[in-house]
Amino acid sequence: MMNAPKFAIVLSGCGVYDGSEIQEAVALMLAIDERGCEYQCFAPNTWQARTMDHFTGESTAIAGDADNRNVLAESARIARGNILDLREFHADDFDAIVFPGGFGAALNLSDFAVRGAECEVNEEVKRAIEESYAAKIVIGAMCIAPVVLARVLGKHKVKLTIGRDKDTAKGICKMGAVHQECAVDEACVDDENRVVTTPAYMLAKSIKQVYQGAGVLVDEMLELM
Amino acid sequence: MMNAPKFAIVLSGCGVYDGSEIQEAVALMLAIDERGCEYQCFAPNTWQARTMDHFTGESTAIAGDADNRNVLAESARIARGNILDLREFHADDFDAIVFPGGFGAALNLSDFAVRGAECEVNEEVKRAIEESYAAKIVIGAMCIAPVVLARVLGKHKVKLTIGRDKDTAKGICKMGAVHQECAVDEACVDDENRVVTTPAYMLAKSIKQVYQGAGVLVDEMLELM
Repeated sequence: MMNAPKFAIVLSGCGVYDGSEIQEAVALMLAIDERGCEYQCFAPNTWQARTMDHFTGESTAIAGDADNRNVLAESARIARGNILDLREFHADDFDAIVFPGGFGAALNLSDFAVRGAECEVNEEVKRAIEESYAAKIVIGAMCIAPVVLARVLGKHKVKLTIGRDKDTAKGICKMGAVHQECAVDEACVDDENRVVTTPAYMLAKSIKQVYQGAGVLVDEMLELM
Repeated sequence: MMNAPKFAIVLSGCGVYDGSEIQEAVALMLAIDERGCEYQCFAPNTWQARTMDHFTGESTAIAGDADNRNVLAESARIARGNILDLREFHADDFDAIVFPGGFGAALNLSDFAVRGAECEVNEEVKRAIEESYAAKIVIGAMCIAPVVLARVLGKHKVKLTIGRDKDTAKGICKMGAVHQECAVDEACVDDENRVVTTPAYMLAKSIKQVYQGAGVLVDEMLELM
């Protein structure tokens, strides 16, 4: 029997407003495990751009504050501690790399939330994506995380979806990528660049829809392997 | 058509070592949603007993420290902000109440982790369980959370499982409850007291098994309604 396909999951914190969208991350893990595949979580060892109180919706700390939080330490909550510093990611060890959504993708993995199409991507995240692209492993992203791929892979005219949000789609196109509208139970597949994306909570009304989208994402990623 | 059964989910923070076990909480939400039922999350508005760095495994704050975290604010991360203070829980509004696991159940909802069978239960948690028992709505718990039910409902000789951990089972029996060993894909059903429990990560080796256990838990709870 062949080895089970192995996915690297790159987290960006723990919570939709300042890190990874938790339900998306967990739905992705479950979809991978349900298909007999394996996963290893990673996150960059860096400070969050901000920390939010998810009950009140207020910002409680920003970069530089003593009580701000670390992306790797917070991501470890979703992974039950079983997580590696993204510096330890090597594309050759995996069949795929995938980014769940949450504002952490636009705050911590990149600064798209602040600078839009002029954004910069965290150095380790950029390296991981470029190394994955060069090694021709399959690259996936959910929700808002495709903006990070647009910034790094726009030069390859990568085709992506963030659902139907026109402003974000405009930003994606400015970075050289091609945006394709997509329903919550669909994935956008770029065969040539080996990139698969799905809208998740950009469109989902319930956790069931997020899990359905995660399943389609993983199925299409497996198809490309 | 009848209204969809409605579950109250009581969270205890966000992360296995100081709050709710995230994967269990999300698997539970998904199992409820997949069955066409509804849920509303709650958490007590109180300080965590401690805050842990889930990457290093070290304690970073304890009760009384300025940088310790609030159970309701952290739980809100799992619920995407859609959560209520447990003070607003009324059993009459629900068909069921259910507690996912994580050390938060033994640190924040009760102090079982510190005091074992002599533990005290958070006042609002105790009220919610007693009110639910009196209203005869179905009560569920996963992983280590059954210890909280044992403390409050031990006087009714409630039958529970925490899997196969002998020390914890002994604590449960000391509180007047009856412990029943149970496999990861099973649930322990106490028909008379209308209480259902499943081991989840007390025994699970993967997220797939946790989701399977959550499904069995929800199915058995629906059966009792």
